[in-house]
Amino acid sequence: MEQKKGTYIRERIACTALERAKLSLMNPAVIEAKAEERTIDETAKPLLKLSLEEGIETVWDRFEQQQPPCRFCASGVSCNRCAMGPCRIIPEHNRLRGVCGADADLIVARNLLDMIATGAAAHSDHGREIVETLHKTATGEAAGYMISDPGKLRRIAGEYGIDGAGRDDLSVAADVSLAMLEEYGTIKNEICFTRRAPDATRQVWDEAGIMPRSVDREIVEAMHRVQMGVGADYANILVHGLRTSLGDGWGGSLMATDTSDILFGTPDLNTSHVNLAVLKDDRVNIALHGHNPVLSEMVVRAAGEPEMLDLAREAGADGINLVGLCCTGNELLMRKGIPQAGNHLNQELIIATGALEVMIIDYQCIFPSLPRTASCYHTRIVSTSPKSRVPGSLYFPFYPESALETAREIVRLGIEAFPERDPARVLIPGQPVEAMTGFSVEAIGRHFGGFSPLVDAIAEGSVLGVAGVVGCNNPKVRHDEGHVTLTRELIRRGILVAETGCAAIAAGKAGLLRPEAADMAAPGLANVCRAFGIPPVLHMGSCVDCSRILVLAAGLAREIGVGIHRLPIAGAAPEWYSQKAVSIASYFVASGVYTVLGVMPKITGSPAVVDLLTRGLDGLVHATFAVEPDPVRAADLIEAHIKEKRSGLGI
Amino acid sequence: MEQKKGTYIRERIACTALERAKLSLMNPAVIEAKAEERTIDETAKPLLKLSLEEGIETVWDRFEQQQPPCRFCASGVSCNRCAMGPCRIIPEHNRLRGVCGADADLIVARNLLDMIATGAAAHSDHGREIVETLHKTATGEAAGYMISDPGKLRRIAGEYGIDGAGRDDLSVAADVSLAMLEEYGTIKNEICFTRRAPDATRQVWDEAGIMPRSVDREIVEAMHRVQMGVGADYANILVHGLRTSLGDGWGGSLMATDTSDILFGTPDLNTSHVNLAVLKDDRVNIALHGHNPVLSEMVVRAAGEPEMLDLAREAGADGINLVGLCCTGNELLMRKGIPQAGNHLNQELIIATGALEVMIIDYQCIFPSLPRTASCYHTRIVSTSPKSRVPGSLYFPFYPESALETAREIVRLGIEAFPERDPARVLIPGQPVEAMTGFSVEAIGRHFGGFSPLVDAIAEGSVLGVAGVVGCNNPKVRHDEGHVTLTRELIRRGILVAETGCAAIAAGKAGLLRPEAADMAAPGLANVCRAFGIPPVLHMGSCVDCSRILVLAAGLAREIGVGIHRLPIAGAAPEWYSQKAVSIASYFVASGVYTVLGVMPKITGSPAVVDLLTRGLDGLVHATFAVEPDPVRAADLIEAHIKEKRSGLGI
Repeated sequence: MEQKKGTYIRERIACTALERAKLSLMNPAVIEAKAEERTIDETAKPLLKLSLEEGIETVWDRFEQQQPPCRFCASGVSCNRCAMGPCRIIPEHNRLRGVCGADADLIVARNLLDMIATGAAAHSDHGREIVETLHKTATGEAAGYMISDPGKLRRIAGEYGIDGAGRDDLSVAADVSLAMLEEYGTIKNEICFTRRAPDATRQVWDEAGIMPRSVDREIVEAMHRVQMGVGADYANILVHGLRTSLGDGWGGSLMATDTSDILFGTPDLNTSHVNLAVLKDDRVNIALHGHNPVLSEMVVRAAGEPEMLDLAREAGADGINLVGLCCTGNELLMRKGIPQAGNHLNQELIIATGALEVMIIDYQCIFPSLPRTASCYHTRIVSTSPKSRVPGSLYFPFYPESALETAREIVRLGIEAFPERDPARVLIPGQPVEAMTGFSVEAIGRHFGGFSPLVDAIAEGSVLGVAGVVGCNNPKVRHDEGHVTLTRELIRRGILVAETGCAAIAAGKAGLLRPEAADMAAPGLANVCRAFGIPPVLHMGSCVDCSRILVLAAGLAREIGVGIHRLPIAGAAPEWYSQKAVSIASYFVASGVYTVLGVMPKITGSPAVVDLLTRGLDGLVHATFAVEPDPVRAADLIEAHIKEKRSGLGI
Repeated sequence: MEQKKGTYIRERIACTALERAKLSLMNPAVIEAKAEERTIDETAKPLLKLSLEEGIETVWDRFEQQQPPCRFCASGVSCNRCAMGPCRIIPEHNRLRGVCGADADLIVARNLLDMIATGAAAHSDHGREIVETLHKTATGEAAGYMISDPGKLRRIAGEYGIDGAGRDDLSVAADVSLAMLEEYGTIKNEICFTRRAPDATRQVWDEAGIMPRSVDREIVEAMHRVQMGVGADYANILVHGLRTSLGDGWGGSLMATDTSDILFGTPDLNTSHVNLAVLKDDRVNIALHGHNPVLSEMVVRAAGEPEMLDLAREAGADGINLVGLCCTGNELLMRKGIPQAGNHLNQELIIATGALEVMIIDYQCIFPSLPRTASCYHTRIVSTSPKSRVPGSLYFPFYPESALETAREIVRLGIEAFPERDPARVLIPGQPVEAMTGFSVEAIGRHFGGFSPLVDAIAEGSVLGVAGVVGCNNPKVRHDEGHVTLTRELIRRGILVAETGCAAIAAGKAGLLRPEAADMAAPGLANVCRAFGIPPVLHMGSCVDCSRILVLAAGLAREIGVGIHRLPIAGAAPEWYSQKAVSIASYFVASGVYTVLGVMPKITGSPAVVDLLTRGLDGLVHATFAVEPDPVRAADLIEAHIKEKRSGLGI
């Protein structure tokens, strides 16, 4: 089934002139208004206008085309799982149960469990690939990779009870990676890293019956439960969803994070730049988009090789400019200071700059229509994952065994494309914004001198609490506005904010990752930030790095000697769209972190499910979900929650 | 989260008088016509009429209420996976892509992959529970279980390279069960039992890139691929579906089958009875419904204990009558000759007999509304699986550690319910039909004296070929008509039929599992049947036992020295509804078996997907799907296919 490297996956899919004409009949005032209502990202607006003028379809256009959505799907009461259906619950037509007898509660819960399983699978399968790369590095099969953080390797070896004394790193890495791979299907019924959670939190999991047994098993059992005639009780189904998500947060995602640190270095504080203006008009621009750093780290190496720079110069460019997008971008930003071009809703607009030679995609959150967008320019879309293979893209399947050579081929492709760039169509708007990133838990600990200064600051009230603001973009929310407004509101109220994923990128674009952003924070928080020379918003990484937030919370809880659910902390996902975000929010809540969503999940068809998630779970895991589209009101909820937890701790 | 044993899962859910009145306003002619058009099962018809007269809702009523279905869901072009949607492809409204950019092909393929993953997870997770029971039996944790087929245990130990010489059965079972559990998450990238496939077939899998690496991993990767922005190419997605299904057929399902044989005995030829008339009006009737024999085997033991029989007599009953339903029923029928009351669409009607004291459910294919149906009678619905927990049922959570005691409690519950039975409402229609079952591959081999007599009969043409007719019931098809008509047509054309699941039960009810059914077969086939004293339709077990059909096919292929795809065999699922059936059909096709479906999958919104599945796969795995609702025409397709394969072999 493997096709030849560098060839198109099926025919190239091009945007037709007719399609473009259909889109480009708006008058300038409408275009202006649309750009304003769609995003608050100032570098995005000119490109959004351009795409509307030129009839280049973007996610917002497709969102408009998809309105109105199906009301049954939107409220979660549509079931298309077995072949007796499809079914819909329509009380006014006396359709109270699907053909199998499932009512609205069950249908909604099953659909939600499928989302959690999908998200947990995405993170965990990504983690598995990195652990496999570590293993291949250890056995010498993965040319070009190395152990970049031997200290972390040995700390983790200690967690697994692997004796590393007197052994070289690669030999220890072999044992660690095998122990990690074993966690996916472990039959010992416990995932090692769940021991990082405080005892009080582990006790909650035990009593709730949600201690994850292995990463894969919970996902597979989730899918068993959505089979017709298995899961029948919405509450029981959703509780298993929490268990599945814990296997992600404390298992698959945490392994992805920690193994990436071992291979590519644990992030430390560094300063770089963010937004679409990180593209350079005189360089070969290559964007790295997706989630898995295994490939992109090799592209960074290849792009720095002298012969590549020579080739670029021969092609008329003043060098090679690598930029990141989404979470592959975050991985590179955190570890290497590679500039970050944007988040989820920037992925089409970066093509519309006319200055992008290649977009290398691995997987997750990649619009499958990107090759259509690219067909309007000279931009090459390069698919690299056998799991993804986007039709109309060039395919350079990527394997650890031949990573560096593949990376070189792709960089060469970018250099070859440079002369095809049409300078008349280049639009790189505005200026990049400076951002301080690299806040791994290790870096935070090092920078603060352990967790106790932060705990002290919380205890004496200069820092009110900590909020994790995470998640995606979603065209249902004005691009970045949810993230930025909520984050501003939180720091204004003295709440330190930890961010990952698209949220962190939005904060970066809005200047909230600069130490000077302390000026926007409450006085106490501002003082702490100034004392430590950090911004009030800590960029903690990619979306799998939400696991870093868990580890940070566990560290704070241990320092105080309580379960995570007693901490003055909260989570938020103001613009989430992805199944992965559902898994993240679920493991936050299951770990005891109250979490506020800005986009309503498709559950409103079941008041019972809504009640369980927003109230009932408190009795099980001492935390709940909330939904609040207004970011200011979301900040109110988080502030009230943090104050309640503070008073519970007597501070 | 565990609740007290024997208490209701939430409040008891009762059918209201108003709901019943809404249903029972039909005139007798309409009722008569409906019963006729809904089923060909003569014992079902009177109960269907009764349920219509009394306003007791059945699956057919709900099916009618759900018409018309959503046309987008029905053709597979509705996507409700991420929170940017829901989306629908509506070409006439210019909705050609979802918000993410996915087109109809991708949406259809992703939905189908989710179905395969669900079905593979269901079978495999069921298999895992049985393997865990074997392990607990070996370690002495599972009181009451034992090794019933030590010969099979030791053969399988040999497959795993486990040396059993000089060791007792339990010690070997401990090693075998650990080796099997390891297959779920194995990191050696191969499942042991795939080696049972002939080399030529394994070569096809290798070349197609679909050799399964572990049972769970393929399911988890499938769910990763349905995450937004991962799987983008419909063909690539569907090929992974084949890989996932192979992990089920040659992994999870085969382990479920073989471990059940080790624990409960490998089926051998036996004769019992089938249809709703197996209920007895003077006994405590207990039905065992679902798929996992781990509990039901203990109920069989408990129901046979003298003290239980004494209690039953004290309650006024002439003993205890256990009957099976669906695949738990097939497991008991195959191994113990417990009468089989019916298949999927009989599960509500058996309650309407008014003579059922208890229905014990484990999981899969259980209508979650059964407690509503039971509320019209004295029948108790007993949920036993923590994965299922049907609201409104009594909950007796079942664990191998305390299985026999739980089984006794449930039998006692049935005895206590007996005096509440209203004799005036009892309707047990017709007479049971005799059926010969127990055709495990071992039993077939023993009975024929190896595979060569069957191969000889095929070679000289007295048997034209072999067809596996499997799968469910679906209210879209007149109950049992698809199975029975197709099976009759096939044997009439000289094709030996192997059946499992609901198909096998339908054949039983129609008298096709009696040796006398040879009279309906073509002369050559009839002679073979008479010579061996068997029917022309072999009941090979439950739906996980479709793995027996794979092993049979592998045995025939080995005997001839070809890949499975060159055999004159075919598969059919005339009335399928379940996600598990999609996985089964997929592993049949991936194993080289042409498979005809009687119900259209929800894929018609993508001509490309339809073309790939019905034609394109031939180039990859030398087999395809076909869809043919008319069972006579399905027989035509199968006959033509078998003749083509015969000529390919020069016979």
